[in-house]
Amino acid sequence: SGFVHVKNPHLDSMEEDVLYHLDLGTKTHNLPAMFGDIKFVCVGGSPNRMRAFAQFMQRELGLAGAGEELPDICAGSDRYSMYRAGPVLSISHGMGIPSISIMLHELIKLLHHAKCRDVTIIRIGTSGGLGIEAGSVVITDTAVDSSFQPRFEQVVLDDVVVRSTELDKDLAEELLTCSRDIADFPTLIGHTMCTYDFYEGQGRLDGALCSFSSEKKLEYLRRAYDAGVRNIEMESTAFAALCGLCGLKGEPCQFYLL
Amino acid sequence: SGFVHVKNPHLDSMEEDVLYHLDLGTKTHNLPAMFGDIKFVCVGGSPNRMRAFAQFMQRELGLAGAGEELPDICAGSDRYSMYRAGPVLSISHGMGIPSISIMLHELIKLLHHAKCRDVTIIRIGTSGGLGIEAGSVVITDTAVDSSFQPRFEQVVLDDVVVRSTELDKDLAEELLTCSRDIADFPTLIGHTMCTYDFYEGQGRLDGALCSFSSEKKLEYLRRAYDAGVRNIEMESTAFAALCGLCGLKGEPCQFYLL
Repeated sequence: SGFVHVKNPHLDSMEEDVLYHLDLGTKTHNLPAMFGDIKFVCVGGSPNRMRAFAQFMQRELGLAGAGEELPDICAGSDRYSMYRAGPVLSISHGMGIPSISIMLHELIKLLHHAKCRDVTIIRIGTSGGLGIEAGSVVITDTAVDSSFQPRFEQVVLDDVVVRSTELDKDLAEELLTCSRDIADFPTLIGHTMCTYDFYEGQGRLDGALCSFSSEKKLEYLRRAYDAGVRNIEMESTAFAALCGLCGLKGEPCQFYLL
Repeated sequence: SGFVHVKNPHLDSMEEDVLYHLDLGTKTHNLPAMFGDIKFVCVGGSPNRMRAFAQFMQRELGLAGAGEELPDICAGSDRYSMYRAGPVLSISHGMGIPSISIMLHELIKLLHHAKCRDVTIIRIGTSGGLGIEAGSVVITDTAVDSSFQPRFEQVVLDDVVVRSTELDKDLAEELLTCSRDIADFPTLIGHTMCTYDFYEGQGRLDGALCSFSSEKKLEYLRRAYDAGVRNIEMESTAFAALCGLCGLKGEPCQFYLL
């Protein structure tokens, strides 16, 4: 059917659904009127960048009001920012799996309540590159954890549930084809490693704590490269697992910032 | 000595330390002059609330400029916000362990470079209560994970390191004593449970995904209560582990928002 689906039998019996962290709700907002025609959702960590991206989309799509300030749809909450440019939503998700998970739960319910169809979601955040040129874009074919496994371990109450992090291969190829028209930066398809920590988890030598040597760091990153990892960030496994379960065609596609 | 210490032998040989997510650095800023007299750091998830808290502290301490706008010290980065009122820093950390960890690594290095002494750090964020009155303040005696264990599992490269989440008992008692002068809201000492997920991890029935029954949720929360848990949030175990390792006297002290 192409609809975004929730997997929660309790939602049907709820009189109102408050999307608390987005400052939206089914009783306070007409979600189908506000969002029913959304076809693309682009997400990234930083609120300023996601506003700039929405403004860029507005110009690219030749929409009325291009160049003017865009209102933050989630202005009543300072957890996330959301901007709209025609059929494109641009949303910030903060840093790390817990932060993007809260946003995705509420976004998926938003798209479900709004009766959106055939929605594609793309993460366009920054990442650290591995053996690739600075400024490259990595389109993720598989999101892997810190052991290079394509899985997301979700704690549900106190059980650990392992979820698939499979992504849409056709979408990845489509994005790669699009990238051929843009000569400014190299684009490649590769595995993306998702960690819970930026310093100790990604082999950085400049955190407040560091117990490993430069050699041990390089040995780990070499193993990651040999396993197919081309970039490292902090959200892709949860993104792949949640979007995959709810029928959102999703693809992390990250810019490797030097 | 009371100094905040880093545990990273690599830092000494670095010519410059860029605190990237705070938009501060050892070459671009005179950190001892800017921060050397800081004695208290208060942290919480939301940037607006941390600005309001700094303004409140400015009034309470009778500082010059009270009531005026405070500049965001991290304005060049939209990852975190930081405000200063006399000897008090007020910083936002976003949501979840990965987000607060990045901030704490860079904050600890900031306090180290600035040669701060005898610094107390208090998390004053919101949380969900467990069997307590809405509007209560919970001062954490022990931060526990989703299995009610006082530990923080940190992935270092691909090894799992288990860290203590012990907190300063004297500070907890001191804060409780202070609370006796404030009649407006009940305050108690208890365990705080820290989860990686807001919806499935905390037994919420209104996420995009929910695979458990209301009974299973209640059974889990009852077990948490019986283990001494009085509130649930998403940062305390990492906060306790990182601050404890670096000589920061730390205490999560959370408001239970209904």
